[in-house]
Amino acid sequence: MAKDFVTRSENYSEWYNELVVRADLAENSSVRGCMVIKPYGYAIWEKMQHTLDKLFKKTGHQNAYFPLFIPKSFFEKEAEHVEGFAKECAVVTHHRLAKNPNGNGLIPDPSAKLEEELIVRPTSETIIWDTYRKWIKSYRDLPILCNQWANVVRWEMRTRMFLRTAEFLWQEGHTAHATSEEAEAETIKMMHVYADFAEKYMAMPVIRGVKSANERFAGAVETYCIEAMMQDGKALQAGTSHFLGQNFAKAFDVKFLSKENKLEYVWATSWGVSTRLMGALIMTHSDDNGLVLPPYLAPIQVVIVPIYKTAEEKAQIDEIADNVISTLKAKDISIKYDDDEKTKPGWKFNEYEFKGVPVRITLGARDLKEDKVEIFRRDTCEKEIIHKDEIISKCESLLTDIQDNLFKKAYDLRASKTRNVDTWEEFKQEIEKGGFLMCHWDGTPETEEKIKEETKATIRCIPLDASEEDGKCIYTGKPSKRRVVFARNY
Amino acid sequence: MAKDFVTRSENYSEWYNELVVRADLAENSSVRGCMVIKPYGYAIWEKMQHTLDKLFKKTGHQNAYFPLFIPKSFFEKEAEHVEGFAKECAVVTHHRLAKNPNGNGLIPDPSAKLEEELIVRPTSETIIWDTYRKWIKSYRDLPILCNQWANVVRWEMRTRMFLRTAEFLWQEGHTAHATSEEAEAETIKMMHVYADFAEKYMAMPVIRGVKSANERFAGAVETYCIEAMMQDGKALQAGTSHFLGQNFAKAFDVKFLSKENKLEYVWATSWGVSTRLMGALIMTHSDDNGLVLPPYLAPIQVVIVPIYKTAEEKAQIDEIADNVISTLKAKDISIKYDDDEKTKPGWKFNEYEFKGVPVRITLGARDLKEDKVEIFRRDTCEKEIIHKDEIISKCESLLTDIQDNLFKKAYDLRASKTRNVDTWEEFKQEIEKGGFLMCHWDGTPETEEKIKEETKATIRCIPLDASEEDGKCIYTGKPSKRRVVFARNY
Repeated sequence: MAKDFVTRSENYSEWYNELVVRADLAENSSVRGCMVIKPYGYAIWEKMQHTLDKLFKKTGHQNAYFPLFIPKSFFEKEAEHVEGFAKECAVVTHHRLAKNPNGNGLIPDPSAKLEEELIVRPTSETIIWDTYRKWIKSYRDLPILCNQWANVVRWEMRTRMFLRTAEFLWQEGHTAHATSEEAEAETIKMMHVYADFAEKYMAMPVIRGVKSANERFAGAVETYCIEAMMQDGKALQAGTSHFLGQNFAKAFDVKFLSKENKLEYVWATSWGVSTRLMGALIMTHSDDNGLVLPPYLAPIQVVIVPIYKTAEEKAQIDEIADNVISTLKAKDISIKYDDDEKTKPGWKFNEYEFKGVPVRITLGARDLKEDKVEIFRRDTCEKEIIHKDEIISKCESLLTDIQDNLFKKAYDLRASKTRNVDTWEEFKQEIEKGGFLMCHWDGTPETEEKIKEETKATIRCIPLDASEEDGKCIYTGKPSKRRVVFARNY
Repeated sequence: MAKDFVTRSENYSEWYNELVVRADLAENSSVRGCMVIKPYGYAIWEKMQHTLDKLFKKTGHQNAYFPLFIPKSFFEKEAEHVEGFAKECAVVTHHRLAKNPNGNGLIPDPSAKLEEELIVRPTSETIIWDTYRKWIKSYRDLPILCNQWANVVRWEMRTRMFLRTAEFLWQEGHTAHATSEEAEAETIKMMHVYADFAEKYMAMPVIRGVKSANERFAGAVETYCIEAMMQDGKALQAGTSHFLGQNFAKAFDVKFLSKENKLEYVWATSWGVSTRLMGALIMTHSDDNGLVLPPYLAPIQVVIVPIYKTAEEKAQIDEIADNVISTLKAKDISIKYDDDEKTKPGWKFNEYEFKGVPVRITLGARDLKEDKVEIFRRDTCEKEIIHKDEIISKCESLLTDIQDNLFKKAYDLRASKTRNVDTWEEFKQEIEKGGFLMCHWDGTPETEEKIKEETKATIRCIPLDASEEDGKCIYTGKPSKRRVVFARNY
């Protein structure tokens, strides 16, 4: 199938771009760096959203909505934050268009210039902490546990669908706490929520860790993250959770009266995942035949394709299909019966295979004479002939199997591409092969920077479960207590 | 309760503004004209969203996502459309901030001026039809039935929370069809979906109608709408559904090969409702004691408040409460047990009354000795003493009753404020009293414009169920075939 489709080994990057478009997930729009998320892609994102939203609510968070625009002066209040985002801001300067007096068309109306420019939010810490100041007076008002589903804009120069776009969709949690301990516990809790989501629903193994100072969020004291490995061995940061200390409370003067009746600055966290997860999902599981989706997130989990010649045969197949559909629907399995006569079975096979539908059932009139049906699993592309009475149980077990198998496959691939490296010479060779290099590092930003300059590799994270071990920094030879993850990344 | 809370008769407008803030629904942000939707308000909006989303999917629509930004030139392509929106556009002109060489702080970086300005979408017809051009080749690609949940920006000069804000949240459906008939049928179908949602879930009666030319959407051939009446007698446009003809297809050159093998322009619709519905909901049902919510959309449908003195009493109440909670939850009724000891029962009564929780159960240790509990319904503020074994059945029947009663109350109020008016003198007097005036009109935009200038009243719609009747225009005396709805509006 898809004979003109480039393979991963030929050109991984092109394979990804083509897959996104041809599987109807997204496409580039006429607006530089902005994508259109097509219905099939959006349906996957919706499934992610719904699942995450439930996990957030289960951990006590509520949704709210804050303005799209941030006054320029708000950005200037937190020094590191503005440093991090000023270079990629969409700036609104006018609130009206007017006829061009010197020519055709419209121009920003000079009489409608804003007194203060507005920034399209690249992230919402500033506007939210400006709001929290009004909400927080006493320890009784804490904690505040808000999340927002929103679009944000970061004017990236080089963009790629889902992975890096000028506008993207995300959620950003912003919480306020009375103590440093509570805020840090929240930060870590949300990293685990993300990790569990990635592993359980996306079938994507991740390393839970802490970022080095160089890779920390602009304005954070500590950034926790989950890091995944794509099939080409490159790392992808899949979610981050920041302990912000009192930085934003100080910038926006947010204080509370403690139980001890003292005025203190509030402690903050923020955490987010975005449509980037779509890119991670695609690159973790898909293959040279197209998209592969873990059953939990597949908009269509099972598709039925009928093959018949006569109306009588079709009627018999319909009856079986109706039965299967109603039984599976009652079990909350999403199923599609494609009996569209405008396309042939062969075309349908290709289509659903390319779109990553986990299970396909072929109801063929000939097979059915012997009570047989063919069932196909997308992850391994294996077909099996089963008795028609087994359809339901087989669908259920296959969906579980596929979910588990995809995780295991990704886990094994990651394991095969993760290795300890102890010398600088070896590092320079190994990094070219991709994967995660577990290395000792002297803990300084300078060393990380130099390694990045020489090899384009960065520290993806310091794993939380790293065991203590005496070693020497691969670059400077200085002493180190644990290995960190080096990789090139998306 | 809420003794310092202004009443509707004292000052309806102030009552509304205060209610929105004090019921924790929303507040003004530091960004001009933009609001913060607080968790309690957002929870109501989420319930609206989920319900509408289901209704859209049931009618065959899929969600997608299109860019926030629209190139200026796209707006210029549809003449009426740009005319309608150019005056209230947020215009992005730069993509970077830089240090101010002549002073402190940051300025839009002159070297990062955009070649073409981008408009923050006030609505997405243009960017979507630019995209549909790539999706549509043949009649086989039609219809396209997409919806998008998004934020939009219209730079309104006078803003009010939920009713008119610079940024608001909404959904916008955009469909593409092979024939005019099919597109018009879709337009009407979605108006009915909105009307059913308003009446069944919001308990808000609406008139289904067509807009006059003056009130039509910029770029539409015909605008269908649902119009509601608020308690002060003013009209509120609650949703619109536009038949766009081939206007956008022509502006963006979207053609398809018909079954007859001819190249034809595609037919379009668009339809939307927004967070404005929150304003409509609040103003339709709430009273001088605060918010009143229809059970379908209430984040908390039932609240339990315990009253006790001893730990033993509390334990007994807990047992009963646990039972009620698990039974109601199993019936999908959202329930809160407020046994927080930091606040007193009286405070809780006020709080939940003000926040419009439909049903309150008081579990008092004293009453329970006689197996009695008090149950309170928010719509009428009536209390009733019932046997504790009746709690579940009473909750269920009350939720249904309240939903029905709220609709009936709103319906009766609207009926009492709707009347036929046949002379211009009477019109001028009656319009001061508010409500809907059913009048004959000569069908010209000029007459409507004059009536608006003299009385601030506009034609809210030409009702679809208006019976034919010979009459004379109240303003010009020219012949008319049916009455239309005149009112002042939000």
